Amino acid sequence: MSEILSDAGLDKIFRDARTHVAWRDEPVSDVLLEAIYDLAKMGPTSANCSPMRVAFLRSEEAKEKLRPALEAGNVDKTMTAPATAIIAYDMAFYEKLPELFPHTDARKLFAGKPDLIRQTARRNGSLQGAYFIIAARALGLDCGPMSGFDRRQVDATFFAGTTWRSNFLCNLGHGDSDKLHPRSPRLDFDAACQLL
Amino acid sequence: MSEILSDAGLDKIFRDARTHVAWRDEPVSDVLLEAIYDLAKMGPTSANCSPMRVAFLRSEEAKEKLRPALEAGNVDKTMTAPATAIIAYDMAFYEKLPELFPHTDARKLFAGKPDLIRQTARRNGSLQGAYFIIAARALGLDCGPMSGFDRRQVDATFFAGTTWRSNFLCNLGHGDSDKLHPRSPRLDFDAACQLL
Repeated sequence: MSEILSDAGLDKIFRDARTHVAWRDEPVSDVLLEAIYDLAKMGPTSANCSPMRVAFLRSEEAKEKLRPALEAGNVDKTMTAPATAIIAYDMAFYEKLPELFPHTDARKLFAGKPDLIRQTARRNGSLQGAYFIIAARALGLDCGPMSGFDRRQVDATFFAGTTWRSNFLCNLGHGDSDKLHPRSPRLDFDAACQLL
Repeated sequence: MSEILSDAGLDKIFRDARTHVAWRDEPVSDVLLEAIYDLAKMGPTSANCSPMRVAFLRSEEAKEKLRPALEAGNVDKTMTAPATAIIAYDMAFYEKLPELFPHTDARKLFAGKPDLIRQTARRNGSLQGAYFIIAARALGLDCGPMSGFDRRQVDATFFAGTTWRSNFLCNLGHGDSDKLHPRSPRLDFDAACQLL
């Protein structure tokens, strides 16, 4: 692992990639959705705990179930997206650890510790959500991640009776670059980092 | 953004990349650390809130200050790594929103709401932590991210009197692939995803 990703690759996943709000009329296949997950799942998590779960909404019926939970500013961009992923995490993720981390009994580190379970699920589920965004971009899709929705309503609608909990939403498709605003600034290295 | 990242690129950032525990004797320059941040900062966050902060520990003095906060199993791999990043988040991130998200008053959405501040800082700081890992890999480095340390002790040692809080640690360097164990399994698509 000594070579560096090409400039075109760095542009695609970081420098030129943008959060999209308008979509070209091009479908996103289920095969491509599966390919996003199959890349994202390879990213590292604590003790390989892999708590992310994803519900891909592609049908009009599923999208309409999501609509009432969306903040007003997120309705149009979501209803017109070819697919919307509910990036969730499983509060029972540790039940999979005998399979995912077989060389030690990691399950017992979590069982009965709700604060540790929640923190671990959220931290690692969010890491995996970022891998998901980068994977989608790497596969030629554009993303529209969003936090503006009612989590309880989404959980009651899509995950009732399960241990899945929503984290954020991510629209997926081929974005219409003509509808983008100029990119917002970022914090400089010196404002966000220390060298010690 | 219609092209797909090359197979070599996908291998580098996802499929062949591994969490490393042993390091070749090759330094990591400050220029490279800055380049990691300059890529990672471009990844999307909610309202561009960009809460991640990073302390890069390169000196022996800084590493020794970290040592007592590490879980036993993380000491050797961290003390021998060319650099260790404390991936943190700023609980006062919203004070930067007038600069980062200038087209609306986003600061007032957060001020005085500690639960929302904490959730937003942790979710988006973790997303950015994952962008950081992918960026480091894209630039030819290997990563060793870790959750096994005493967060309060790290915060007291490195961030006393500030609004920065530690999230996870990430060793950085050129990994010794001979010291890797076989890769652990991941959850299949059908075990972690729904198509609706």
